[in-house]
Amino acid sequence: QIDHFGFDENLTFQQRYLIADQHWKKDNGPILFYTGNEGDITWFCNNTGFMWDVAEELNAMLVFAEHRYYGESLPFGNDSFSDSKHLNYLTSEQALADFAVLVEGCKFTLQGLRTCVFPNNLFMSHSRALAASAPIWQFGDLVPCGTYFSIVTNDYKRSGKGCSESIRNSWKAINHLSSTDAGLKWLSSTFHLCSPLKNSQDAVSLKNWLSETWVNLAMVNYPYKADFLQPLPAWPIQEVCKFLKNPSLSDKLLLQNVFQAVNLYYNYSGEVSCLDMSETATKNLGQLGWYYQACTEMVMPLCTDGVNDMFEPQKWDFRALSEECYKAWGVRPRPSWILSMYGGKNISSHSNIIFSNGGLDPWSAGGVTQNITDSLVAIVIPEGAHHLDLRSRHPLDPKSVQQARALEVCYMKQWIEKARQSH
Amino acid sequence: QIDHFGFDENLTFQQRYLIADQHWKKDNGPILFYTGNEGDITWFCNNTGFMWDVAEELNAMLVFAEHRYYGESLPFGNDSFSDSKHLNYLTSEQALADFAVLVEGCKFTLQGLRTCVFPNNLFMSHSRALAASAPIWQFGDLVPCGTYFSIVTNDYKRSGKGCSESIRNSWKAINHLSSTDAGLKWLSSTFHLCSPLKNSQDAVSLKNWLSETWVNLAMVNYPYKADFLQPLPAWPIQEVCKFLKNPSLSDKLLLQNVFQAVNLYYNYSGEVSCLDMSETATKNLGQLGWYYQACTEMVMPLCTDGVNDMFEPQKWDFRALSEECYKAWGVRPRPSWILSMYGGKNISSHSNIIFSNGGLDPWSAGGVTQNITDSLVAIVIPEGAHHLDLRSRHPLDPKSVQQARALEVCYMKQWIEKARQSH
Repeated sequence: QIDHFGFDENLTFQQRYLIADQHWKKDNGPILFYTGNEGDITWFCNNTGFMWDVAEELNAMLVFAEHRYYGESLPFGNDSFSDSKHLNYLTSEQALADFAVLVEGCKFTLQGLRTCVFPNNLFMSHSRALAASAPIWQFGDLVPCGTYFSIVTNDYKRSGKGCSESIRNSWKAINHLSSTDAGLKWLSSTFHLCSPLKNSQDAVSLKNWLSETWVNLAMVNYPYKADFLQPLPAWPIQEVCKFLKNPSLSDKLLLQNVFQAVNLYYNYSGEVSCLDMSETATKNLGQLGWYYQACTEMVMPLCTDGVNDMFEPQKWDFRALSEECYKAWGVRPRPSWILSMYGGKNISSHSNIIFSNGGLDPWSAGGVTQNITDSLVAIVIPEGAHHLDLRSRHPLDPKSVQQARALEVCYMKQWIEKARQSH
Repeated sequence: QIDHFGFDENLTFQQRYLIADQHWKKDNGPILFYTGNEGDITWFCNNTGFMWDVAEELNAMLVFAEHRYYGESLPFGNDSFSDSKHLNYLTSEQALADFAVLVEGCKFTLQGLRTCVFPNNLFMSHSRALAASAPIWQFGDLVPCGTYFSIVTNDYKRSGKGCSESIRNSWKAINHLSSTDAGLKWLSSTFHLCSPLKNSQDAVSLKNWLSETWVNLAMVNYPYKADFLQPLPAWPIQEVCKFLKNPSLSDKLLLQNVFQAVNLYYNYSGEVSCLDMSETATKNLGQLGWYYQACTEMVMPLCTDGVNDMFEPQKWDFRALSEECYKAWGVRPRPSWILSMYGGKNISSHSNIIFSNGGLDPWSAGGVTQNITDSLVAIVIPEGAHHLDLRSRHPLDPKSVQQARALEVCYMKQWIEKARQSH
């Protein structure tokens, strides 16, 4: 159903979901359901090894459901992003409704599958859930807007002397150089950019691109070699920081080091001939869709001050966002809607959710990091980046993520036991 | 916001709400919020005296919010019911969103009002709620489809000897008479119909109208003189049954008695010159809107067998409903959606809801009449018709409704105390 919340148009679309049942015990094995997010579901499926590990232990079936408007689950095919009319059904509520209907449907269409352990209430489909690295409070004024970037900054501070200071100094260096044509040319060549910088507006893009790169590195700062947003070595920020030891260098020397640093992120394979500022991560992420969602429901206030973080100071500017969204999509964001819809900080009457957060992950700024009730519990993994606990077990895993996963499995077993008893 | 769940159209409408603050203590008095239903809010406001009684006791403010598409809260004015496009935003989810946004807004617009005791999660706005006479399980196959009419029948059985049997026998009598033109004429004249019956299809309408009348009487079978759906004496079914003591009479004599009975419902004032089959209750109810909702989300399976009830046997026929809805509105009902959306019987993870039900009320068939958890509690009022506990205290109130109200107030006080402590 393209529109679950209205009856005028009765159009439907094909939603993709993946199933793995090799470990499943048909009599009473549980089902672990991955509620797809902003990208291709096969890619998330391949980067969520924890579920595969747990499937064996719990004799569980795995279902990975793709989020509408991402991957191949496009309600209007190639027209899905053509205008605000076609985008109108890209909301979290519609996506949750898809999952609820899919869960209901599975009872009837899978051979032998009779009972699902999910509650079938749409907005409680998370009510026995692991919400991993979920920034559910990065909205409204629920958390300070600056924490996100200060966490990024701390990741660089702890990964090498002079590292965050080098980055903080790089902005001025770019500003200096981009004020002349010769400087723009030098920057384009030094950063091996595919499209050379033409004016100072392009220099702003360069800075935004670098900022996004530092943030992305913070998200995937894993303790072992991995390929999530990009192929990267173990503890990539430590590697990057090896180039950024001296913040006091001249503008050009400093920026040459900054290039070495970002080049590690974009070109770890060594096969990239030039750096493309329009791409900061894997194409498996649905950037268009996410941009639209950030322009409608998912308004996440972020800001920097250059003191508690290593970025250029920038206040949170809702008006500017609203104008940008109107230009890009013809829609205006409604920043308070999500608070009304999902309750903001007033979620204590929910139950059975584990919130896990990585201490290195900037998204933990908007995460639940303290227990709310006995059954709304928070797990913090100090050495964890984004989604670390969702990844396959690995010999180089820090103790903290091993313990977090053990606790998560323990809760799951309790839920399953309770569900069996109440049947 | 006309469409809370989509961002393409950004239209708004005026929603009506009523406020009473004469008993309110501004510092920390609670707010009782009436989530409007299928009719004019001023009418419900005047028929929900319990809230006015309680406001005094709790120093509470009262807010009565009108449900969209009813009363004066018409999103598209006179065009609101013109076609399925304009009706597209008449859903329970949109209405709940209206209430959630209104509750959020009240913090800012009412002078002196700083804290609302409501949780601000949209789908938990009922989470400290009195759900009075709420047939939340009259959907899907959650309850047997026949209970509703068997409760109606029991109301007549207990109200007079021969009463339900007379009604059960009346259908055949109508069938006999309506097979001839003379019979149709006799029926039209005997029932004082404003529009005479022309054919056997009209006779079906007559039977439906009579059935609806018996059902309505069951809903408003109050222990004192009242005017809810119609002005009526105390215990109106007992009054009606005084005309229906002898089920073995000839067709014509039986039906003359049936006329006396329904005439009591439609013409208690004695001022009505003819009976209009198109009107069975007060015009304050929004019949069009309710019909649309019953054709989309609110699909309530009902059936009769003529054995456990006094009606002509009629199976639940979803296909027929779907065809009728498509003809009337151009929409098809989605009977399982509401189960996915609100959880069906799986609501134990909700909390703080009192479900009250009248034993005489046919809607109790789909109500919660057993405690689900410590904080999802059921109250049954054996002598209660629809919404009796929501009405003003009255000297003729049965003990059971007095006790029910006392318990409801007791729970409310506990909620308020808890909310104050946690502030």
